[in-house]
Amino acid sequence: MQTTLVKSLFRDTEKHLDKEVQLSGWVRKIRDQKSFGFIELNDGSFFKGVQVVFDSNLSNFEEIAKLSIASSVYVTGKVVKSQGAGQTFEVIASKVEVYQKASAEYPLQNKRHTFEFLREIAHIRPRGNTFSAVFRVRSVLSYAIHKFFQEQGFVNVHTPIITGSDAEGAGEMFRVTTLKLDKPPRNADGTIDSTQDFFGKETNLTVSGQLNGETFCAAFRNIYTFGPTFRAENSNTSRHAAEFWMIEPEIAFADLSANMELGEAMIKYIIRYVMEQCPEEMEFFSQFIEKGLFEKLNNVLNNDFGKVTYTEAVEILKRSGKKFEYPVEWGIDLQSEHERFLAEEHFKKPVFVTDYPKEIKAFYMKLNPDQKTVRAMDLLAPGIGEIIGGSQREDNLELLEARMKEVNLHPEDYSFYLDLRRYGSFPHSGFGLGFERMLMYITGMTNIRDVIPFPRTPKNALF
Amino acid sequence: MQTTLVKSLFRDTEKHLDKEVQLSGWVRKIRDQKSFGFIELNDGSFFKGVQVVFDSNLSNFEEIAKLSIASSVYVTGKVVKSQGAGQTFEVIASKVEVYQKASAEYPLQNKRHTFEFLREIAHIRPRGNTFSAVFRVRSVLSYAIHKFFQEQGFVNVHTPIITGSDAEGAGEMFRVTTLKLDKPPRNADGTIDSTQDFFGKETNLTVSGQLNGETFCAAFRNIYTFGPTFRAENSNTSRHAAEFWMIEPEIAFADLSANMELGEAMIKYIIRYVMEQCPEEMEFFSQFIEKGLFEKLNNVLNNDFGKVTYTEAVEILKRSGKKFEYPVEWGIDLQSEHERFLAEEHFKKPVFVTDYPKEIKAFYMKLNPDQKTVRAMDLLAPGIGEIIGGSQREDNLELLEARMKEVNLHPEDYSFYLDLRRYGSFPHSGFGLGFERMLMYITGMTNIRDVIPFPRTPKNALF
Repeated sequence: MQTTLVKSLFRDTEKHLDKEVQLSGWVRKIRDQKSFGFIELNDGSFFKGVQVVFDSNLSNFEEIAKLSIASSVYVTGKVVKSQGAGQTFEVIASKVEVYQKASAEYPLQNKRHTFEFLREIAHIRPRGNTFSAVFRVRSVLSYAIHKFFQEQGFVNVHTPIITGSDAEGAGEMFRVTTLKLDKPPRNADGTIDSTQDFFGKETNLTVSGQLNGETFCAAFRNIYTFGPTFRAENSNTSRHAAEFWMIEPEIAFADLSANMELGEAMIKYIIRYVMEQCPEEMEFFSQFIEKGLFEKLNNVLNNDFGKVTYTEAVEILKRSGKKFEYPVEWGIDLQSEHERFLAEEHFKKPVFVTDYPKEIKAFYMKLNPDQKTVRAMDLLAPGIGEIIGGSQREDNLELLEARMKEVNLHPEDYSFYLDLRRYGSFPHSGFGLGFERMLMYITGMTNIRDVIPFPRTPKNALF
Repeated sequence: MQTTLVKSLFRDTEKHLDKEVQLSGWVRKIRDQKSFGFIELNDGSFFKGVQVVFDSNLSNFEEIAKLSIASSVYVTGKVVKSQGAGQTFEVIASKVEVYQKASAEYPLQNKRHTFEFLREIAHIRPRGNTFSAVFRVRSVLSYAIHKFFQEQGFVNVHTPIITGSDAEGAGEMFRVTTLKLDKPPRNADGTIDSTQDFFGKETNLTVSGQLNGETFCAAFRNIYTFGPTFRAENSNTSRHAAEFWMIEPEIAFADLSANMELGEAMIKYIIRYVMEQCPEEMEFFSQFIEKGLFEKLNNVLNNDFGKVTYTEAVEILKRSGKKFEYPVEWGIDLQSEHERFLAEEHFKKPVFVTDYPKEIKAFYMKLNPDQKTVRAMDLLAPGIGEIIGGSQREDNLELLEARMKEVNLHPEDYSFYLDLRRYGSFPHSGFGLGFERMLMYITGMTNIRDVIPFPRTPKNALF
């Protein structure tokens, strides 16, 4: 007989009613009452487990009744309507075959555990409710992103993880090396001889795929990257990890408006997709992780995102009468308190802030005719603040070179990037979305360590 | 007026005929004949370009006629049936607006370039036919893999890139560090003090996500990883790169037969998907890159894969009467010549070879009752040799620990992995597919450097 998945029992209950099925999975809960008992069987295919009823007519009743949490079993039985509270159907077992009785030391017993403790058993935690929900949603969200872009003909580019360019400047980098640290080869002057390293030069882990992505945008028009990126920043906060995944689309013959349209469409699509595909998980988050989660997400889905320039936003903040910790003046980088005021109290929905002062933004952003601001955009959302950041790119060779010199970058380090402005330059735009940031927003989880399977943070690379 | 994509012109020609459209893109070819001329316009959305006809009635006819390859333009014009050979429709331009005339130094002029030369301009090469085809297929193949697994409810796991375990043993590793190479902190005895490194210990780039993946298999039943992996091996061959992508599914309550079934279904699905989605690119490969490509792929699609044990395979090789460079004896690792003989000459289709001697396979593979062989499987395919490798995993704690000691591994280094055998151990299986290997097989490209956007190989990390 073919194995039936628990997911199928829940999604197509009618089809299975009064029929015999064979299941395999793990004991999540068990209680016995002398002559019969109940197993909550989870087989990994579904957030919920199915109730299996076993009784003393089974030849190995004693063995079953003594099973420990996490034990693995094969069950044969009949699907019937359930009288009990809490489930509409259950499986009356005709056979329960024990594959392995789990050691009683199993660390994930049925009681409340702190998230901190669960991080120490990151290899076990996805077997519990919260992390089973988090990591299934992580998978579905990741697919939603691919689906959104691929269905519109975007080309997915695998930009390199190991980068030879030390010129990206977006953050502290990890060095990648095969040199022996205790006795590295040295030049005559005592400096490290990187020509003897694996790649013949110093290499690091990427902090962004954007510059490489732009080169493929010139070939395929619309592209996206989706891969791991790295920051060697010693910040032990709930929002920073040394290794995280990022999505970076880049679109050709597209200005900042098209970029905002794309960002809004993407955010709405992926939220909707997760809500449709993972109703049980989302219900769990809304009950146990973040009250008001659905309200928050529906507010994103059901409103056109706001649009405001940085200059207007500064005026709104100044006129608000609010006392901010960081005083507001034109030219400052908006702080979290300002971003949240704009999204949560003023606009009460996601809002794009555009046209920031060039001094606080990256060198590659397109200069506005006012010579003071650039075609940047940050999307601020209620409950989280900045969620995507992007811009139209400077596609004029002279302006870009001039800007690079202003900020002390060497154009010769970026020759491949400048080539895009030499050979058929084109208006183009793009943005970056931190995948874990989005996942935290959708699930309500508040620590990035709790949405990454095996998080990497300062002094921690467990498993 | 909305921009029309060239892809839409080709796929829905009827819809556009005799209507005006607006296009934007790059000049791929141009020729002028005094009073009129032709542009082959590629907009990145499609493998082929559309023919744009311009004539001297246009006010900027002189400017257009002098455009260089790669120049970017906006075109307005009418779609009409074409009389010319080579296309069924063309666009008669009423307006051609030049966005940028590309520098005449553009390195990708319309003549034959060697693949070696094109690697030096990896930021430009996807604008040419071969690499436009390769990298669009790369994207579609990557999506096919996600689609295949997600539609069956597999959970995609992002296993860590930076790994603290120095115990995977699958190959030479890159060290990841923030220590200053020229003056690293040292212990009293002169050795490097890795506790001062970013993660408080030595860390490396992952060589496989399998062990981490197995832990999620215990929670979600069926999972897959799809991400970058690394080898610091100094091998300068056409089949090795230091950074490449790998797919590693892992399935629970599944033996080697289920594993083979999954492998066969996946290979067929992804080949079929690419052939359906990229007919123009596949046609190009079959004409210019590998004669007989379709025959090779259809042979895979239209046959049940063969199955043979290693022991039987050795007999077949011995009886073949063929003279091999490496003589065949039970116990040897099969060489490329043996693998190709089996797939190409004996079975003439893909074939799974199973149950290899334990000595030549990894420690985690399930021991057979004969105590000599393990439940391993390699899939050999005509024209390439080994394409996937996998096994049923040893799920018996004692046997696994014993095997680890036999091969001088320390069980205490793998405690998280052994926990899976303590807490509800379950039969499970999985395999690894090298993504680039598969891409080379589907496209006919013979050098791995030509299927990776920015390849990383010894002494090379360009861009």
